[in-house]
Amino acid sequence: MHPQMEDTARSQPSAANVREGDTRLPVGALTTRRIEAFSDGVLSIVITLLVLQISVPIISAQAGDAELTTRLLEMIPKLFSYVISFAIVGIFWVGHHSLFHFIICADRTLLWLNNLFLLCVGFIPFPAALLGAYGTRRVTVIVYGASLALTGLTLAFIWRYATHDRRLVNNDLHPQADRSGLRRILLGPALYGVSMILCFVSVWISLVIYVIVPLIYILPGRIDRHWRRSTEAG
Amino acid sequence: MHPQMEDTARSQPSAANVREGDTRLPVGALTTRRIEAFSDGVLSIVITLLVLQISVPIISAQAGDAELTTRLLEMIPKLFSYVISFAIVGIFWVGHHSLFHFIICADRTLLWLNNLFLLCVGFIPFPAALLGAYGTRRVTVIVYGASLALTGLTLAFIWRYATHDRRLVNNDLHPQADRSGLRRILLGPALYGVSMILCFVSVWISLVIYVIVPLIYILPGRIDRHWRRSTEAG
Amino acid sequence: MHPQMEDTARSQPSAANVREGDTRLPVGALTTRRIEAFSDGVLSIVITLLVLQISVPIISAQAGDAELTTRLLEMIPKLFSYVISFAIVGIFWVGHHSLFHFIICADRTLLWLNNLFLLCVGFIPFPAALLGAYGTRRVTVIVYGASLALTGLTLAFIWRYATHDRRLVNNDLHPQADRSGLRRILLGPALYGVSMILCFVSVWISLVIYVIVPLIYILPGRIDRHWRRSTEAG
Amino acid sequence: MHPQMEDTARSQPSAANVREGDTRLPVGALTTRRIEAFSDGVLSIVITLLVLQISVPIISAQAGDAELTTRLLEMIPKLFSYVISFAIVGIFWVGHHSLFHFIICADRTLLWLNNLFLLCVGFIPFPAALLGAYGTRRVTVIVYGASLALTGLTLAFIWRYATHDRRLVNNDLHPQADRSGLRRILLGPALYGVSMILCFVSVWISLVIYVIVPLIYILPGRIDRHWRRSTEAG
Repeated sequence: MHPQMEDTARSQPSAANVREGDTRLPVGALTTRRIEAFSDGVLSIVITLLVLQISVPIISAQAGDAELTTRLLEMIPKLFSYVISFAIVGIFWVGHHSLFHFIICADRTLLWLNNLFLLCVGFIPFPAALLGAYGTRRVTVIVYGASLALTGLTLAFIWRYATHDRRLVNNDLHPQADRSGLRRILLGPALYGVSMILCFVSVWISLVIYVIVPLIYILPGRIDRHWRRSTEAG
Repeated sequence: MHPQMEDTARSQPSAANVREGDTRLPVGALTTRRIEAFSDGVLSIVITLLVLQISVPIISAQAGDAELTTRLLEMIPKLFSYVISFAIVGIFWVGHHSLFHFIICADRTLLWLNNLFLLCVGFIPFPAALLGAYGTRRVTVIVYGASLALTGLTLAFIWRYATHDRRLVNNDLHPQADRSGLRRILLGPALYGVSMILCFVSVWISLVIYVIVPLIYILPGRIDRHWRRSTEAG
Repeated sequence: MHPQMEDTARSQPSAANVREGDTRLPVGALTTRRIEAFSDGVLSIVITLLVLQISVPIISAQAGDAELTTRLLEMIPKLFSYVISFAIVGIFWVGHHSLFHFIICADRTLLWLNNLFLLCVGFIPFPAALLGAYGTRRVTVIVYGASLALTGLTLAFIWRYATHDRRLVNNDLHPQADRSGLRRILLGPALYGVSMILCFVSVWISLVIYVIVPLIYILPGRIDRHWRRSTEAG
Repeated sequence: MHPQMEDTARSQPSAANVREGDTRLPVGALTTRRIEAFSDGVLSIVITLLVLQISVPIISAQAGDAELTTRLLEMIPKLFSYVISFAIVGIFWVGHHSLFHFIICADRTLLWLNNLFLLCVGFIPFPAALLGAYGTRRVTVIVYGASLALTGLTLAFIWRYATHDRRLVNNDLHPQADRSGLRRILLGPALYGVSMILCFVSVWISLVIYVIVPLIYILPGRIDRHWRRSTEAG
C-alpha cells in the first residue's frame, strides 16, 4: 500500500531490517514470529484432528461385549494410522521450527511458501484417515506417500528460498548448514517416493517404510552421527 | 463498569492512551494484541477445519482398487474447494494482520466489528464444503461468493472505522495509505459481486474468478506495481 | 509438591506475590497469563466449532438447483443459531478478559472455577446445534437457556471469588467495580432464567430474549449510561 | 545439522545453556517455551473436541417434545463422559504445567517424550466417546482406563527423565520434590490400573473410581495435607 514501505520490503539486503518493533514494517510482510505462531496453531490443530478419524463403532443394544471388542480390534489399522501420522506431523513441527530458528526475516514469497506448507500439512488428516480405512490398498499408499512427500518438498522450498544468497537467514549460519539441512529435509520425500514405487511390488513394503521414516527422524542414533560426519567433511 | 475508565476509553484522542501495561485499561476494551491473538486462533482453526469436508469414501470390502481410485478421483472438486478456500482464508489472515499493524488501539466498536469479521470467516467452512459438493450449481456459486464478499466487507468496515479521522491508527500512517488500503480490500468483494452476477451466464466463469481472486492477492506482479503507481499518483 | 511453595500459594495476602518470573511460583498454581491463554484457546476453538453444526445438505445428482436452494433455505434456523451462539461466546470471551484484567493472581480454586467455566463454554456447541435443529421445541429452549445461564453463573463465581476481600484482584480496583461487575455478569443468567420460564407461554418469546441478550451486551447505548449512573450513585 | 550446535545440545551440563534468545540454540532442540505453547494448543483443542461426541439426536418432524426430551435424557451418559473427560484433560494440563515450571531446558529426548504425551492426550476423545456410548461395557472401561493410565505414565516418564541427575530442571528444585512429584503423577495410573482390574467384579466400581480420581486431584483437602506431611517427612 504505502510505496516506501513496499520498497523497504523488496530491497532489504540483510535480515536485520525487518524486525519486531520496527514501525516501518511493510504492509503485507509479516514478521517470522507471527508466521511461526500461525503455523504452530495450524500444526497443533492438524495433529489433534487426526483422532477424529477414529469414530466409535455402532453396535446394537443387544450385542454383547464380545462384539464390541471385535469391532474395536478391527480399528487397530486406524490406531496405526493415528500413531504414524501423529509422529509425522510432529516431525514436520520440529522441522519447521528448526528452519525458522535460522530464518529471521520474512518477505511475501516466504509467507506464501509457508502457507503452501500449511496447505499440505492441513491436508494430512485426509490421507491419514484413508490409510486408517483402506491401508492395504495401493492407491491409499500412493495418496498417503504423495501427500507427505509434497509437504516435505514445500519445507525444502522454504529452506532453499531462505538460505539462497543468505536471503532471509542469520549470517551466523554455518556455511554447510544450509546444504546439510536441505539434504535432511529431502530424505523424507525421497523415501516416500521409493515407497510409492515399491507399493507396486507389495504395499506391505511401503507400509514398513512409512513406519521407518519417522523413526529415522526421531531416534538420534546412527543417522545423526553420520550427519555430523558428513557435515564436518562437507 | 468503572466510570472513569469508561470515560478514558471513550474520549481517547490518540492511540497512545490504551496500551498494554496501562493499568487504567477500561473494562470491556481489549488491547489490539489480544484481539489479534484471538483472531489468529480463530483463523488458524477455520483454515484447518476446511479439510474436514473431505471425508473418506465408503466402499465395500469386496470392491477393488479401481473402485477406490474412481471414488477418490470423484473427490477432486472437494480438493479444488479445499485449495481455493485455504488460499482465501490465508489472504484474509494476511490482510487482517496488515490492518492491525497500523491499528494500535481498540475500542468497543472495533472489537465487535472484528468479531463480525470472525463470524464471517468462521462461516467459510460451510460454503467451502458446499462448493466441494455442488460446485457447478448456481446457488452454490452465489452462497460462496456472498460469503466471501461479506467477509471482505467487514474487513473494509474495520479499516474504514479505524482510519476515519485517524481514530485508532498510528499517526505515522501515510496519508494515502488508508484510501489505497480500502481500495485493495474492496477489490475482493467487488470481484465476488461480479462473479455472482456472471454465474447467471455460466457458473464456470464464476469459478474461474474464484481462482483468479486469490492469485491477484498472492502474486506480486502487475497489480502491486499498479498499486504503487496509483498510490504515488493519488 | 514442595511444601514451602504450597504454603506460599495458600497464605498469599496480596496479589503481588505470584507474578510471572517469580521463581517461587508454587507447583499447581498457574499464573493468570497461562490461564488466560488456555481460556483464549478453548474459546476460539468453541466459537469456530459452531459452524460444524451446519452440514452440507445431501441431494441426489438428478435434483435441480431449485431443490438445493430449498434445502439451503431450510437451514436458516441453523444460521440463526450460528450467529446468536457466536455472539454469545464472543461476549463470554470479552467478559472473561474484562475480569482477568483485574484478576492479577491465581490460586487452585480460581484455576478450577475457571476450568468449570471452560467446561460450560466448551459445551455450548451442543445446545447451539440443538437450537439450529429443533429451535421451536420447548425442551431445546430450556436446554439452551440453562446452558448459557450456567456458563454465566460460573463467570459470576470467578468474579465473586476473586474480588471477595480483594483476594486476587488489583488493589486499584474501584470499590464499586466488584459489585457493579457482578450485577452486569448476572444480567445474562437472569434473563436466560426469565426466558426459560416464558417458554411455557411461547417459545417465540424465549427466542426473542436470546436475540436481545447479546444485543444488550454488545450495543453501548442506554444500558451503559444507566450503568455509569448506578455505579457513580452506588 | 551444524555439528558444533549439536555438541552444545548434547553436552550441556546445566539448564542455563539453552535459553530463549541464545542464538546458538541447536537445530532440533526446541526451547521449553515452544514445547509448552504447542502442548497448550493441543490440550486446549483436545478438551474442546470432547463436545463433538455429543451429537444432536435425529427425530422425525412429527415427533413431539416428549420424544426429543426422552432422546436428550438418553444422552446423559455422554454428558457424564464429557464432564469426567474434561476434568481429566484439565488435570493433565495443570500437571503438565507444574512439571514444566521446573523443567527449564529441553533436549531431543524430552521433546519426543512430550510428543508421546501429546499422542496419548490427543487420543482421549476416542475413549471418551466410547465411554459416552457404551459406558457400562467392560471393554469400554478397560480401553478408557488404559488410555488414561498410559497418558499419566508418559507424564511420569517426562518428569523422571528431566529430574534424573537434575538433567533438565532448575537447581533450586527441592531435593524431595522430584520423588514426591513422581508419586503424585503415578497415583492416577495406579488407580486406573485398579479400576481396570475391578471392572471384572463390576464395571460400576470402575466408573466410580473414574469419578473419584479427578476429584482427588482437583479438591485440595486431605490429600494435599497428607502430601505435605509425607514430603516433609521424606
